[in-house]
Amino acid sequence: MSSPHLQTYEQRAKKHGNPAARKLLETMERKKTNLSVSVDVTKKKDFLAIIDVVGPFVCLIKTHIDIIEDFDQTVIEHLQELSVKHDFLIFEDRKFADIGNTVALQYSSGVYKISSWAHLTNAHAVPGPSIITGLSSIGLPLGRGLILLSEMSSKGALTTGSYTEDAVRMARSRRDFVVGFIAQKRMDGIGAIEADDVTEEDFLVLAPGVGLDSKGDAMGQQYRTPREVVLESGCDVIIVGRGIYGKSDQLDVENVRKQAERYRQEGWSAYLERVSLSP
Amino acid sequence: MSSPHLQTYEQRAKKHGNPAARKLLETMERKKTNLSVSVDVTKKKDFLAIIDVVGPFVCLIKTHIDIIEDFDQTVIEHLQELSVKHDFLIFEDRKFADIGNTVALQYSSGVYKISSWAHLTNAHAVPGPSIITGLSSIGLPLGRGLILLSEMSSKGALTTGSYTEDAVRMARSRRDFVVGFIAQKRMDGIGAIEADDVTEEDFLVLAPGVGLDSKGDAMGQQYRTPREVVLESGCDVIIVGRGIYGKSDQLDVENVRKQAERYRQEGWSAYLERVSLSP
Repeated sequence: MSSPHLQTYEQRAKKHGNPAARKLLETMERKKTNLSVSVDVTKKKDFLAIIDVVGPFVCLIKTHIDIIEDFDQTVIEHLQELSVKHDFLIFEDRKFADIGNTVALQYSSGVYKISSWAHLTNAHAVPGPSIITGLSSIGLPLGRGLILLSEMSSKGALTTGSYTEDAVRMARSRRDFVVGFIAQKRMDGIGAIEADDVTEEDFLVLAPGVGLDSKGDAMGQQYRTPREVVLESGCDVIIVGRGIYGKSDQLDVENVRKQAERYRQEGWSAYLERVSLSP
Repeated sequence: MSSPHLQTYEQRAKKHGNPAARKLLETMERKKTNLSVSVDVTKKKDFLAIIDVVGPFVCLIKTHIDIIEDFDQTVIEHLQELSVKHDFLIFEDRKFADIGNTVALQYSSGVYKISSWAHLTNAHAVPGPSIITGLSSIGLPLGRGLILLSEMSSKGALTTGSYTEDAVRMARSRRDFVVGFIAQKRMDGIGAIEADDVTEEDFLVLAPGVGLDSKGDAMGQQYRTPREVVLESGCDVIIVGRGIYGKSDQLDVENVRKQAERYRQEGWSAYLERVSLSP
């Protein structure tokens, strides 16, 4: 069997054991999009307005729920309604990074109750396997999936060499719950030892730092194009933020829609070209 | 000049350039305590009740504000009142772990507005220097301090070798804002190159995973005694959680007070023994 990224999203959906990953792959195929929009705004009105505009073009909405100043429970209710209306999944980019007992509480409890509405969330590998144990104790019964950060795209990130290998090994040993990586390239077989059967592993690779019009920002974030990340590096989902909805407080609906469709097309044509390479 | 941990907290307070670190060291000396209690409960009533009982015995209260289910702004108001009443600082154990722009928003904005009330917070080094740039843009003007995680005490943590060295290097280049480490031992001079002047550096070392009666929990957390971490390993602040307030929903005030005083004494006598070794 060829490497996962040379198979279609549909083929991969049929074989995936995790319900959240399966649903994401099915959505990507159905809507012909591998675009995720990262909605990093601080007002609930802007947050929901952007999602309503980009919704038709995305498979996944990435949130930082903890930056919304005027957050209340209606934000979650509206987000879930939009998820149904536009047929996308929700990914809370929480970057959990604590020990098992603590992340279990942060995931399930508090004001946000992330596990109750986010199909996917993510975590750093740095605390060791207990972080997966803690999060899976909450998320697995709910059919959720976890993304590990095996790489970061910021300058001077410490996710290199043995760090990345250890992160992938942690994921491999919990494939029931860990469904992919935040990374800039495929992680297939990384850190595997001879005893590991890696032929059946299919980790989704979600790539942040995607942009068509800019090379970086003042705080060390670096950008690559959809074609680079999907075709050349084999990533599955492109994550785009300000490149789509800009910096203005005034939402330019027509332009946001145009940008979302532009990124969707770029990402999807790179994917089509990629799977056409399959033997 | 002898290593920072062989000097008294008072001596170190006089020389420290960061206002939050200086205030913490002064408080430790004045109250004769290097104890921090980690208050990991999910109800605001329990949260505030525990802090009111342990307050007299601690220099620092460590919070996970995002696990409190019934959080509202009165929690912060009461926490700040208790901070004044009992003379302690507040350390939000947020473990920031994202790129600069995102952590700046998570620190300053959202429901919690952490920068407005937490004297100290912490961050992982994994995203690279941009995380310090982002957090310091908010925290420095407010006189806050940042703790970096250069080690974790959970099993299989990836904070080893070059990771720890890189974390300490990142801290060293931003000593105006990074005032210490979450670690299990001193970090003095780690990762330094010849050109670095490390004689004046004084990083506070805050050690989690401290317990007198247990060796670990089911999710991979491991415990050491106050004497081990303060005297043998040269740490400055001991962080104790359930070892002080137990697991019960019913707060046993007398016992909690007894345990807090027991840990305060253990930590302080280890410190006195340590500084008596000074040449």
